[in-house]
Amino acid sequence: MSDLSVNAPRLWARLMDMARVGAIPNDGSRRLSLSDADEGGRALFVSWCAARGFSVMHDQIGNLFVRREGADPKAAPVVMGSHLDTQPNGGRFDGVLGVLAGLEVLETLADARIATRRPVEVAVWTNEEGARFQPAMMGSGVHCGVRTLDETLAVCDAGGISVREEITRHGYLSGLKPGHHALGCYVELHIEQGPVLEAGGKTIGVVTGGQAIRWYQVTITGEETHAGPVPMAMRRDPVPVLARVIDLAQAVGTTDEQARATIGMIVAQPGSINVVPGQIILTVDLRHPDEDRLTEMHTRFMAGVAALDQARVGVAAVNSWHSPVVRFDAGLVERVRDSAAARGYLAQDIVSGAGHDAFHLARMVPTTMIFVPCRDGISHNEREYAAPGDVAAGANVLLDVVLKSVNRP
Amino acid sequence: MSDLSVNAPRLWARLMDMARVGAIPNDGSRRLSLSDADEGGRALFVSWCAARGFSVMHDQIGNLFVRREGADPKAAPVVMGSHLDTQPNGGRFDGVLGVLAGLEVLETLADARIATRRPVEVAVWTNEEGARFQPAMMGSGVHCGVRTLDETLAVCDAGGISVREEITRHGYLSGLKPGHHALGCYVELHIEQGPVLEAGGKTIGVVTGGQAIRWYQVTITGEETHAGPVPMAMRRDPVPVLARVIDLAQAVGTTDEQARATIGMIVAQPGSINVVPGQIILTVDLRHPDEDRLTEMHTRFMAGVAALDQARVGVAAVNSWHSPVVRFDAGLVERVRDSAAARGYLAQDIVSGAGHDAFHLARMVPTTMIFVPCRDGISHNEREYAAPGDVAAGANVLLDVVLKSVNRP
Repeated sequence: MSDLSVNAPRLWARLMDMARVGAIPNDGSRRLSLSDADEGGRALFVSWCAARGFSVMHDQIGNLFVRREGADPKAAPVVMGSHLDTQPNGGRFDGVLGVLAGLEVLETLADARIATRRPVEVAVWTNEEGARFQPAMMGSGVHCGVRTLDETLAVCDAGGISVREEITRHGYLSGLKPGHHALGCYVELHIEQGPVLEAGGKTIGVVTGGQAIRWYQVTITGEETHAGPVPMAMRRDPVPVLARVIDLAQAVGTTDEQARATIGMIVAQPGSINVVPGQIILTVDLRHPDEDRLTEMHTRFMAGVAALDQARVGVAAVNSWHSPVVRFDAGLVERVRDSAAARGYLAQDIVSGAGHDAFHLARMVPTTMIFVPCRDGISHNEREYAAPGDVAAGANVLLDVVLKSVNRP
Repeated sequence: MSDLSVNAPRLWARLMDMARVGAIPNDGSRRLSLSDADEGGRALFVSWCAARGFSVMHDQIGNLFVRREGADPKAAPVVMGSHLDTQPNGGRFDGVLGVLAGLEVLETLADARIATRRPVEVAVWTNEEGARFQPAMMGSGVHCGVRTLDETLAVCDAGGISVREEITRHGYLSGLKPGHHALGCYVELHIEQGPVLEAGGKTIGVVTGGQAIRWYQVTITGEETHAGPVPMAMRRDPVPVLARVIDLAQAVGTTDEQARATIGMIVAQPGSINVVPGQIILTVDLRHPDEDRLTEMHTRFMAGVAALDQARVGVAAVNSWHSPVVRFDAGLVERVRDSAAARGYLAQDIVSGAGHDAFHLARMVPTTMIFVPCRDGISHNEREYAAPGDVAAGANVLLDVVLKSVNRP
């Protein structure tokens, strides 16, 4: 570690200022990706960068790259980053911390007039949350070639508005080609979004990798009919089958303590009190830190759905997304562990349960993450909270890792 | 029965002619209550009545009464009827059949020069469907004093247009005071809107009454959290409890063959693929033709909800509406049964699952209904269809019931 530390009050103040853009009651923020509120948050961020003379580039999917130049401008930059978009009832720290702590590191370097060999950048990835446009981690996915720009621009939200329309409206389509410049390495500071660090009394989570994730869309198809005249035995009611799908997902998600199963969306159509729904659509999210175990869960879930699929009421599941297990770069992980030890922060190794832009980056360049605790493990919620001391500790570890990376060949 | 039968081709031709007013693709009709299309259908109907010399009265809520005079003009009339308005994607028979079969009975009596002691009338009730203005069964409700004229005139559609504006525009406001003349009895012919008669190979449903109905809003409250980081054992997930509520409703709804339970609306909040919902709201519709059995279902359902209500995930149910059992007049029901038997139509007793204007009338005067099958039990849909032979059979039973009622003291 260096003797240098970040300006913790400045970072905290900026977190609170950003939370006012798209503010909702109870200290929450709603900045759905590519909405006016999201664009407002980005504009505020860009204004802070510009005020310090850092250049800001954007690419055609709306990813932003803020740059502090290095002594060797041709060297691949050390990149920090995260996202500024939120869930519908989002908090003040998820994503925002990684971006604003990145800016804080740039400013700390500038304040101390530290010259680095490599340039240092902060990336703001478009649509990490996936709340408005699916899939999540859209901007980093396009940057890393996981999906094409064209297919991504064609995605529409529930109201039929496409990514292309919003990207065009905000003026990003004229930007750089995604993935245009090579990154040297990538470090993302983030709240844990779980209760493990808090429960263990730790300040820093040394993130060694990420869970494997599979997403499913399940469609249960019956027949819409009037709630009164049709006897129960003559109905093709998808609702009782929904209960069986819920029980199946719950059974698959509790095979061992590290497994997870979540049903986040349930839509019954047409959704009228005296009409038997004709169709129910739901989502299932399965996770496990061990790829083989997730494969077993997948097999069991798909077999269970197939067994529930009957002529009377049909059930079909589509595995719409698979994010394999992620292993972070051993050297960068070690620098996080060393920094925490040197600064006297209690730390523990941890596997990320949530998906992050860093997962895509890890396919391309040496990558790691730093976690700090969040109260009660709550995120994606207005009550999401990280203590100022933990925020500062995380930003200092981020600073250390950057400093240990910027002068390497 | 008499030797008299209706002119079935004339009735069928008029059903098809009426369907052309507000026609939509696939043989459907769209005549939302008090719209130009609805008024067009009424004008066509009135022109047919006028051509036969039947007088037409209207009241201030737009109900029409077509009258064939009796030998004793002061005697309370025998009244048939139903409605001419439709759902947005309505069919050719729901409501229309009861009105045009009523006209057909008047014409059959006139053709045969049959004098009756009592006058015979056909009522066209305003806004039975409730698709444009709520609640449904509006005109018959005002006629029967279930709700006042003034509160009903104040109701607005989704576009902010009031019943009063439309009633005034069509010239009904100058009409008779609702409920101005006493009815002797009321008989309504209608398609079943369910699959029971068709499945049983029956032509005539002898409707003995209407189901009792209770509506509930159920709220399941857990804690919103991220799908990845939080171990299953530490979650407060409302989704597994939803499966238990579904199973409970299903169990309550299958206690006997006449019970019904429907879950029509399910809303999981916030409804994001990678977020454990914080709350789920659903509706439950319980029905039974026996009031005591519905009370038992209610008690069992509420006790089941109370048993599911835990500190970790809470469950609460509110019984928001209760429509008691409707019992039709035993004498009129017997006349329907006798007519079907005498004409050799296969018939069965049936309880109406859907609501009808006859339910309001049953509070005031001896009332019954006659059902005929509809294909696949489908209604409120363009595909709604009743076979010509069944339509004729229903009209003949209606004729018989009228003939057996018109000369009673």
